Amino acid sequence: MSKERIYLFDTTLRDGQQTPGIDFSLEDKIAISAMLDSFGIDYVEGGYPGANPTDTAFFAEKRTQNAAFVAFGMTKRAGVSASNDPGLAALLQAPSDAVCLVAKSWDYHVEVALGCSNADNLECIRASVEAVTACGKEAMVDCEHFFDGYKANRDYALACARTAYEAGARWVVLCDTNGGTQPAEVAEIVAAVTAAGIPGDRLGIHAHDDTGQAVSNSLAAISAGVRQVQGTLNGIGERCGNANLVTLIATLVLKPPFATDYAVGIDAGKLTELTGLSHAFDELLNRSPSVQAPYVGASAFATKAGIHASALLKDPRTYEHVPPESVGNYRRVMVSDQGGKSNFIDVLKRRGIAVSKDDPRLDRLIAVVKEREASGYAYEGADASFELLAQRMLGRVPDFFTVNGFRVMVERRFNSAGELRTVSEAVVKINVDGTDYMSVAEGHGPVNALDIAMRKDLGAYQSEIEDLELVDYKVRILNGGTEAITRVLVESTDHSGARWWTVGVSDNIIDASFQALSDSIVYKLMKNRDLAGRIAAE
Amino acid sequence: MSKERIYLFDTTLRDGQQTPGIDFSLEDKIAISAMLDSFGIDYVEGGYPGANPTDTAFFAEKRTQNAAFVAFGMTKRAGVSASNDPGLAALLQAPSDAVCLVAKSWDYHVEVALGCSNADNLECIRASVEAVTACGKEAMVDCEHFFDGYKANRDYALACARTAYEAGARWVVLCDTNGGTQPAEVAEIVAAVTAAGIPGDRLGIHAHDDTGQAVSNSLAAISAGVRQVQGTLNGIGERCGNANLVTLIATLVLKPPFATDYAVGIDAGKLTELTGLSHAFDELLNRSPSVQAPYVGASAFATKAGIHASALLKDPRTYEHVPPESVGNYRRVMVSDQGGKSNFIDVLKRRGIAVSKDDPRLDRLIAVVKEREASGYAYEGADASFELLAQRMLGRVPDFFTVNGFRVMVERRFNSAGELRTVSEAVVKINVDGTDYMSVAEGHGPVNALDIAMRKDLGAYQSEIEDLELVDYKVRILNGGTEAITRVLVESTDHSGARWWTVGVSDNIIDASFQALSDSIVYKLMKNRDLAGRIAAE
Repeated sequence: MSKERIYLFDTTLRDGQQTPGIDFSLEDKIAISAMLDSFGIDYVEGGYPGANPTDTAFFAEKRTQNAAFVAFGMTKRAGVSASNDPGLAALLQAPSDAVCLVAKSWDYHVEVALGCSNADNLECIRASVEAVTACGKEAMVDCEHFFDGYKANRDYALACARTAYEAGARWVVLCDTNGGTQPAEVAEIVAAVTAAGIPGDRLGIHAHDDTGQAVSNSLAAISAGVRQVQGTLNGIGERCGNANLVTLIATLVLKPPFATDYAVGIDAGKLTELTGLSHAFDELLNRSPSVQAPYVGASAFATKAGIHASALLKDPRTYEHVPPESVGNYRRVMVSDQGGKSNFIDVLKRRGIAVSKDDPRLDRLIAVVKEREASGYAYEGADASFELLAQRMLGRVPDFFTVNGFRVMVERRFNSAGELRTVSEAVVKINVDGTDYMSVAEGHGPVNALDIAMRKDLGAYQSEIEDLELVDYKVRILNGGTEAITRVLVESTDHSGARWWTVGVSDNIIDASFQALSDSIVYKLMKNRDLAGRIAAE
Repeated sequence: MSKERIYLFDTTLRDGQQTPGIDFSLEDKIAISAMLDSFGIDYVEGGYPGANPTDTAFFAEKRTQNAAFVAFGMTKRAGVSASNDPGLAALLQAPSDAVCLVAKSWDYHVEVALGCSNADNLECIRASVEAVTACGKEAMVDCEHFFDGYKANRDYALACARTAYEAGARWVVLCDTNGGTQPAEVAEIVAAVTAAGIPGDRLGIHAHDDTGQAVSNSLAAISAGVRQVQGTLNGIGERCGNANLVTLIATLVLKPPFATDYAVGIDAGKLTELTGLSHAFDELLNRSPSVQAPYVGASAFATKAGIHASALLKDPRTYEHVPPESVGNYRRVMVSDQGGKSNFIDVLKRRGIAVSKDDPRLDRLIAVVKEREASGYAYEGADASFELLAQRMLGRVPDFFTVNGFRVMVERRFNSAGELRTVSEAVVKINVDGTDYMSVAEGHGPVNALDIAMRKDLGAYQSEIEDLELVDYKVRILNGGTEAITRVLVESTDHSGARWWTVGVSDNIIDASFQALSDSIVYKLMKNRDLAGRIAAE
């Protein structure tokens, strides 16, 4: 096998730090560099030592074991020697394996931003690269605005790249700083650079997503010859973000012609941790992962019941461009009002519910699901409620308890200190096996109070729901004003680690919440009896 | 000028309906088709008449004025004539201008999913297209799995496309159903199709984003010859979504070589509504627009203070690949501390609020806004609440009324007929100029009851708020379970037609709603005095 090696360069901690709304703490940076390092990324760019207190603290020590640890900074200024430039000196002193120097390669910016001559800028590149390599570090040069610079002054852009290469830079990185270059132009310009004498195995690509083509631009550059690709976790970065390294890695490892022609530092085994890496990063940013994200999104291998679902179940390979498990993701087939009968039977079968095609209860179930979805229910996001509905129609759900009524009160009033305070209280009347139980609770709001009260005393079943925990609560107003139909989704879990979603719909948000909370409890009781255990185990 | 015309085909209402978590109501579909129609999309695919109650109701009448209204469905089944196929008959009867027929073009799926011979499938395509054109409608054929089918059995995939073309289909659409095809393959296969005798001006491309390359695949197909491009608003769709039509439109109108070689039905003037279209669609889905979205995202033209910001301000053109205003977006330079102040003054000035740079109240306002936004308020979406906050800090809001308390009760109980019913009731105590007013009201839910009670008796001000109307109410849970922080946004209007948004945040949904409702009333009273009239008029 003589696959050519593609080097993965992560700039999450540097260009990703430019993302509006994202500010990494020192602890964040330490955690992220460790994630990248252990995953098998070749280069981890840590930031700009000396530019701000966080980056300076982060560069107090080397933060990677396997990956090359990269410090980022500017080439020396014109008019001072490399040894007399304090910015460059700080970069060289940082305990990094490599230094990435950003250099202007568009003559217009040399004039406007640097205010020096074109020749001076070339000299700054040369002297700075030589200073880095003289320290025993790997030097690389980010040619800023390379593509726009090339279009404005081809010869000068090429001279910048060639100067870096000839001075000994391991990598000359072609940056699409404005993000507006498209794949065909990238391919054409990379070919021109290699034709000008800089070999592809010394070239990198740094793409931005301003036309939604950062991934394609990066792959086009690889096809045209470059051997280092830069990107960020989940595509964070300035403006529309950098090339999404998570997406790129999966394509490079799994998909021809990339998988067949090239090798990266991540093998098929490690690739199964890709979804986990992507989600762990979002977790650290305290944001929900994108459900649509290629390869790793919750929907990436999801199919709604419809024309594709039944065929998918027959032979997933023909409906999935890669196996979901190869990236640590999994297949989801969901119910919705678009489904047909055979589809419904399949969905039920996967949940361990057998029902024959001629069973009249099946027609009734389909009719009820369609009617409910038309009125605002969304069973595709609420597996547990769907399962309960099906089991109920088939007469398989015991009457564990009956809620004979509830009352929720929210009162804003002055407390004894003369401050306005809002208090929420709920009272629930539940009958279990002929015995009435009445519970009252206060909560952060009416739904929280109702939730606590409902789970306070379930008689004989109370011990069974002690480990039931609500982990998420979502509200969607389906139409219009304060009298609108409201859909509530509740996510629950228990000590087994299983998670299930239930749904409620009403023009009254309390009622909708009650339905979803109630379904969650019944599902938990069913689950304890293993009637529903199969889903949880899935 | 002899630019070739590219036709825009929107499948938001059909393939977009396959998005996990998205279920359009009839009202949604009507609103979205009107948005697409007035924006200048050529084809609006409405759904699958006969497949479910929503789509059937949507196809009760033609829903577009300018765009071709497209019904989607399957080719006739093998073994019955076109005139005897009930599915096809339903399609032909729908009041659409065009019918898009999905047809298998991968021989494997013909065998597995249809269970008929390859020849039978070709005959189904031919007869179905002829049945559509015989009705005087435009026929188009979605060649499902075209790219995978081509790779598996080139001759058969081409035979399917050629059969559709020769039978009279206006468009033969090459679908990358699994979404795994990459730009170079798309270009190569499209070239093979045109070489096989189907001209590019009869070909369409339908791409999915499973490798993050749907936009690039679509553009590669256009470069290779196709003249119809399919996509969805904001790239919703099955799995990772369809090609994002919003991104594609901007690139086609603004960026060479597309802008120079091709024309679409949207001119530069209309393009300035693109950001509005994208955000209005997310609004309808009740989700936050992607800040990173190419062209239309809040961050698409944002720069954080850093190496680019000062250069950007010197000459934006060299740092922006297109002007933000060309797509109705705008430049954001987020400057830190010292710069934040002049920025704030600008924002206030645009709202007609003059405040001097040295005014200590300005520092307090900045601190309060930062603190509140950190706790969940989103003033960007609630202009009226922001204006009130600023005016209050400047001491310019009279104490129209004081709410001394409220009580909201939701009770589920048996009525006299023995049925469980939920009743919501709110009591509000308001003091106006020293006089107490106490009002009680029932509503559809607790917030609706509170809303009605609050506006029932405002003493001397009651006549002023008679035309105040709540038109929208949104709830977003910001984190965690039923005790989570909740943000409520309320949109109000009055007889002047002005619309304003107010916000409330609390761990109690009733409290959050109360804040937003209360702000709306005060804003209305301010507006009546023309203190706030400038915003409303903006």
